Amino acid sequence: MDHLNFAVIGGDMRQAKLAELLAADGHRVSVFALEESAPARVCQAPSLDAAVQGTDCVILPLPITRKHTVINTPLSAISMTTEDVFSALDQDQLALGGLINEEIHEQACTYQIPLLDYYIREELVIANAVTTAEGAIQIAMEETPITLWGSRCLILGFGRIGKVLAHRLRSLGTHVTVSARTWADLAWIRAYGYESIHTHALDQHLGGVDILFNTIPRLILGLDQLCRLDSDTLCIDLSSRPGGVDFEAAERIGIKTVWALSLPGKVAPVTSAMVLRDTIYNILQEQEQGQCQNK
Amino acid sequence: MDHLNFAVIGGDMRQAKLAELLAADGHRVSVFALEESAPARVCQAPSLDAAVQGTDCVILPLPITRKHTVINTPLSAISMTTEDVFSALDQDQLALGGLINEEIHEQACTYQIPLLDYYIREELVIANAVTTAEGAIQIAMEETPITLWGSRCLILGFGRIGKVLAHRLRSLGTHVTVSARTWADLAWIRAYGYESIHTHALDQHLGGVDILFNTIPRLILGLDQLCRLDSDTLCIDLSSRPGGVDFEAAERIGIKTVWALSLPGKVAPVTSAMVLRDTIYNILQEQEQGQCQNK
Amino acid sequence: MDHLNFAVIGGDMRQAKLAELLAADGHRVSVFALEESAPARVCQAPSLDAAVQGTDCVILPLPITRKHTVINTPLSAISMTTEDVFSALDQDQLALGGLINEEIHEQACTYQIPLLDYYIREELVIANAVTTAEGAIQIAMEETPITLWGSRCLILGFGRIGKVLAHRLRSLGTHVTVSARTWADLAWIRAYGYESIHTHALDQHLGGVDILFNTIPRLILGLDQLCRLDSDTLCIDLSSRPGGVDFEAAERIGIKTVWALSLPGKVAPVTSAMVLRDTIYNILQEQEQGQCQNK
Amino acid sequence: MDHLNFAVIGGDMRQAKLAELLAADGHRVSVFALEESAPARVCQAPSLDAAVQGTDCVILPLPITRKHTVINTPLSAISMTTEDVFSALDQDQLALGGLINEEIHEQACTYQIPLLDYYIREELVIANAVTTAEGAIQIAMEETPITLWGSRCLILGFGRIGKVLAHRLRSLGTHVTVSARTWADLAWIRAYGYESIHTHALDQHLGGVDILFNTIPRLILGLDQLCRLDSDTLCIDLSSRPGGVDFEAAERIGIKTVWALSLPGKVAPVTSAMVLRDTIYNILQEQEQGQCQNK
Repeated sequence: MDHLNFAVIGGDMRQAKLAELLAADGHRVSVFALEESAPARVCQAPSLDAAVQGTDCVILPLPITRKHTVINTPLSAISMTTEDVFSALDQDQLALGGLINEEIHEQACTYQIPLLDYYIREELVIANAVTTAEGAIQIAMEETPITLWGSRCLILGFGRIGKVLAHRLRSLGTHVTVSARTWADLAWIRAYGYESIHTHALDQHLGGVDILFNTIPRLILGLDQLCRLDSDTLCIDLSSRPGGVDFEAAERIGIKTVWALSLPGKVAPVTSAMVLRDTIYNILQEQEQGQCQNK
Repeated sequence: MDHLNFAVIGGDMRQAKLAELLAADGHRVSVFALEESAPARVCQAPSLDAAVQGTDCVILPLPITRKHTVINTPLSAISMTTEDVFSALDQDQLALGGLINEEIHEQACTYQIPLLDYYIREELVIANAVTTAEGAIQIAMEETPITLWGSRCLILGFGRIGKVLAHRLRSLGTHVTVSARTWADLAWIRAYGYESIHTHALDQHLGGVDILFNTIPRLILGLDQLCRLDSDTLCIDLSSRPGGVDFEAAERIGIKTVWALSLPGKVAPVTSAMVLRDTIYNILQEQEQGQCQNK
Repeated sequence: MDHLNFAVIGGDMRQAKLAELLAADGHRVSVFALEESAPARVCQAPSLDAAVQGTDCVILPLPITRKHTVINTPLSAISMTTEDVFSALDQDQLALGGLINEEIHEQACTYQIPLLDYYIREELVIANAVTTAEGAIQIAMEETPITLWGSRCLILGFGRIGKVLAHRLRSLGTHVTVSARTWADLAWIRAYGYESIHTHALDQHLGGVDILFNTIPRLILGLDQLCRLDSDTLCIDLSSRPGGVDFEAAERIGIKTVWALSLPGKVAPVTSAMVLRDTIYNILQEQEQGQCQNK
Repeated sequence: MDHLNFAVIGGDMRQAKLAELLAADGHRVSVFALEESAPARVCQAPSLDAAVQGTDCVILPLPITRKHTVINTPLSAISMTTEDVFSALDQDQLALGGLINEEIHEQACTYQIPLLDYYIREELVIANAVTTAEGAIQIAMEETPITLWGSRCLILGFGRIGKVLAHRLRSLGTHVTVSARTWADLAWIRAYGYESIHTHALDQHLGGVDILFNTIPRLILGLDQLCRLDSDTLCIDLSSRPGGVDFEAAERIGIKTVWALSLPGKVAPVTSAMVLRDTIYNILQEQEQGQCQNK
C-alpha cells in the first residue's frame, strides 16, 4: 500500500498503539484526544482541525461514542461530538469508527462524509473474541483463590466468545458447561465435548458453579437466578451494555461480579491494535478496488 | 412419547441399527429391503405393502435415492422407486428421508404424502460431521505407513466437517493447515491456532503435504493441482457427489485417493443410528405440537 | 479419620486456608504467627506454647524457614526459630513442614521430635506444578500487552512445571518451544507436539521469543544470554532460589523480568490448601499404619 | 556421518523400510531374510555370510528373537539362530537388536561380538509409545460400531503408552479414566484432567466401559474381572507377552478382545523406521565418541 496520512482521534490504548503501528509502517500519523498516552513517532495535534487536515483516513474509537454523540475519549480531557468531527472533514476523507448507530450514520450522511464501521468486519470481531476470552480467563484467575484446573465453569451463550472461551477453559482443565437455546448450538457444544444445557433449564443448573461467564447481551441473571448461585460463585459478565446481570441485586445478596467491558483494549492493546490495523488495511484496499463489502 | 408403529425401508447399517434402537424403546418396527442385515427384535416384512401397513411413520434412507428415484438399498437385492413407496402410503403416514431433491418432494406432493428431510436438521448434520471426521482419521491411519503424529495435513474448507476434523487432527499431533475463501473463516482458522491459506493461494501450498482432506463438494483438485502434490500424498475426499477430486487424473499420475462417502453409516452405524433416532423423535414432537421447523 | 488437634504455625495464605479447611472437617485447630490473616473458626493462640499445647500434629510453613532457622512468617510480625518450636514440643507430637534442610532435620533429631517434610510428597509437588503453571500464565497475561494466542513462548526445562505449563500454553494458542538436556526429555517434548531444542543450542534460539519461562534452578540466563533476547521479551523465572536469571544484568540492559516465587500460595491459596490438607491426611494415615514412606 | 556399510537381517516392514532409509542417506545396505518385502535400492544378499561380509553394523529385529534364540523373521521363510549370526561376524562389527535377553547377551560375549540393545533407548521407546497409541486408536475405531467421541474409555496403567494414549483419547472427545497404583501417578492423572482410580478399586469400575485399554504386562483381567465388564466392551491389550488378559476366559464368556502386539511395525512402518534410524545414528555417534551410554 502507498503511504497515507492518518488521523487517530480519541479512543483507548488500542488506538494509541494503532497510531504507533501505522507510523511504523511508514504512514504519516497525527493523533488528537489521546494526550494521556504518548504514542511513539506520531504527532500530537494541537486541535481537531490540525489533526484531520490533509488526512486520507480518520480513525475514530470503538465504541465511537460513549453517550449520545460524544466521542469516546477515555485517555483525554477533551470533549467533542461526532458533529464536531464530521464538520471538520471533507467528502474525500474516509472516516472509520466502531459500533456506529443509525443516528450517527445519518449524521455522517448529512455532512456527506463517507463513514464505515470497522466493528462489523468479521475478521476483527472474531479476533476480538479471542482477546476477550483471554481477558476473561485472566480475570477469573485474578479474582478467585482457586485454580481454574478442577473448577466448574458455566458459560451462557455459544456465540463467538462462548466458542473460544469454552475451548480454552477446557484445555486448562476446567469442567465446562455451556447453555444455549437452539438445537444446532446444543449439538455443536456436544460435538466439542462440553456439557450442554438448554436455556430453558438454566435455573436448575446454577448451583455448584465456581465461575459463571455470561456472553449474552440481555438480562439473564436477575435476582431469582442470582439467589440460586452458590455464595462464592464469581460472575464475569462479558456482554456489552446493558449487560446480562442485575448488578445491584448481586451486590445486595453478596454475589461477586465483574463487568468486563472492552477487554481487548485493556488486556492486550498491542494485539488488538494489530488486528485493527489489518482490518483497516483490508477496508482501504476494498475502497480502492471500488468494492465496499461493508454496508 | 407414546409407542408408535414404524417402518424402516432400505438404507445401510445405520437404518438397520435404527430399527433395533426404536424397537428397544418399545415401538413396533417392521423393516423391508434390509435383508442382508438382521436387526434384532424387528419384523422383516414380506413386501413393501406389508411393511408400511398401519405405520405412523416410514423412515427412508440417507441419501433417499442413489439414481433418479430408485430407493437406496445397499443391503438388499430389492429394487423400488420413491413412487412405489408413496403410492403405498396414506396421507396420515409421515415419511422421512435424507437428502431429498426437489423432484422427489414434488412427487410426494402429488401423492399428498407428508415428506420431511431429516438431513436438513442441524443437530443431525453436526453429529454426522463428528462421525465423518473420525472416519476420515481412521482412513488416514489405515492408508498411510506413517503416524498422524508429526505429519502435515491440509484441509480444504472450514465448514462443519473441516472444523471438527481440524480440532481432532491438531490434538493428534499433526501440523494442520486449512484453506478457506472468506475473511471470517480465515479469522476463525487462526483463532483456533491452525495455519490458514486463502483458496486463491492454494496452488502454491500443495507441496509437502502428507495427507490432504477435501470437504468442498466442487471440483477442486484437477490435473493441474494433483500434479503439484508430492507423489506419496494421500487424498481423502469427504465431499458428496460429484466429489472434489478428478479421480481419473489422479489414478493416471499415481496419486492415491480415497473417496469416502457416507462414512457415518460405515464407521459408526450405532452412533449414527442413535443420532438419527434422536432427530426423528425431535421431528415427531414438533409435528405433534403443530410446528414444522423443517420447511 | 478421628478428630485430631492441630496447630498451624506461620506461613502464608495457604496455611491460613488450611487451618480453616481442617476446622471445617471437624478437627480442633489453633493458629499462631498468622495474625494478618483471620482464618474462620480457628483459635488464634496467644503464644507458641499455647498453640502447640495438646496438639497431635503441628504444621509448619513451606518453605519452613526463610533464613537459616528462622520460621517463615510472612503474615506475622512474630519471629521465632525452628529451635523455639522443637523445644516447645513433645516426642509424641508430629511436626510437618516443607523444604526442610539437613540442618533442621538434625535439630529435630536432637530434640527427638518426629519431623516429616510434606513437600517431598509427589502428590503435593505435582499439584503444585499445576498451580504454578496457572500462576505463570496469569503473570504472562498481566505483564504483556499482547495475547498469549499467537505469541511465541520458550520454556527452559521439561520437569513437572515445564510439562504442565507447555500443555496449557499450547492449548491457549501459543507456539511452544521447550529446551531440555536429555534425549528422553527431547523425545517426550516431540511426543506432545512441541518444538524441541537441545540446551546446548539454546543460545541460538533466544531471539524472536515473546515470553520466556525458566523452570531450572540454576543460573541459565546470564548477561550473554540476556543480550540475545529481543528487547521486549518478558522473562518469567519460576525456579526456586537462587533463580535462573541474572536479574541485575537484566535490569541493566532493560529486559523485563518477573521472579515468581511461591506462586501456589499467592494465586490459588484455597486450591493449595486443599492439596496440602489431602497430603497431610495421607501422611497421618501412613503414620497410623506404622509405615513411613517419607524417608 | 561418513557413509557406512549396513546389513539388515530379518524383522518386519519396519526393518525393510529402515534399509531403504539408510540407503537413501547414501549408505551401502544389504538385507537378508526379508525376501517377502522388497526394499528399494538395497541388495538382497544370497546368504547370511554374504549379507554381513564387510559391514560396519548389523541390524537385527525387534524383538531380536521369537522363540529361544531363533531370529524373528516374519517376512521370510529363512530360519537362523543368534548363534548363526554371531559366528558369522567379526569383533569389529557392531551388532544391534531389540529386546535382547541375558542369554543372548552372554552368547554375544562368548563370540566377542559387541551387541547393543536399541530398544532400551528412551528416544526410541517414547516415540514407539506414540505410534502404539495411534495404532490402538485405529483398532478402537475399526472394531467398534460407535464413535470414540462420547464413548467411555478405561486405560490400565499410566506409563509411557498410557500417558500418550490418554492425551489423544481425551482430545477425540472420549471420557477418559486411568487406573494406577502410586499416588504420584494418580496425581499426574488428575493434573492432566482425567478421572483416576486406584488399582485396588479397579474391580468396582469395570462396568459401563465401552473400550478398555490394558498397558500393564501382567495378568490383570482374569475371569473375575472379565465377568464384570459389559458384554459389548472391547478389550485392547497393548502389553507385551504374556499379556494382561486371560484371552481364553474372554472368549468363553464372549468378551471381544484384541491383543495388539508390535503395533509400530504394523501401523506405521515408515515412522517407526525413521525413529529406529535416528536412534541407530545416535548409538553410532556415541560409539565413535568412545562413550557408551547404553550399558
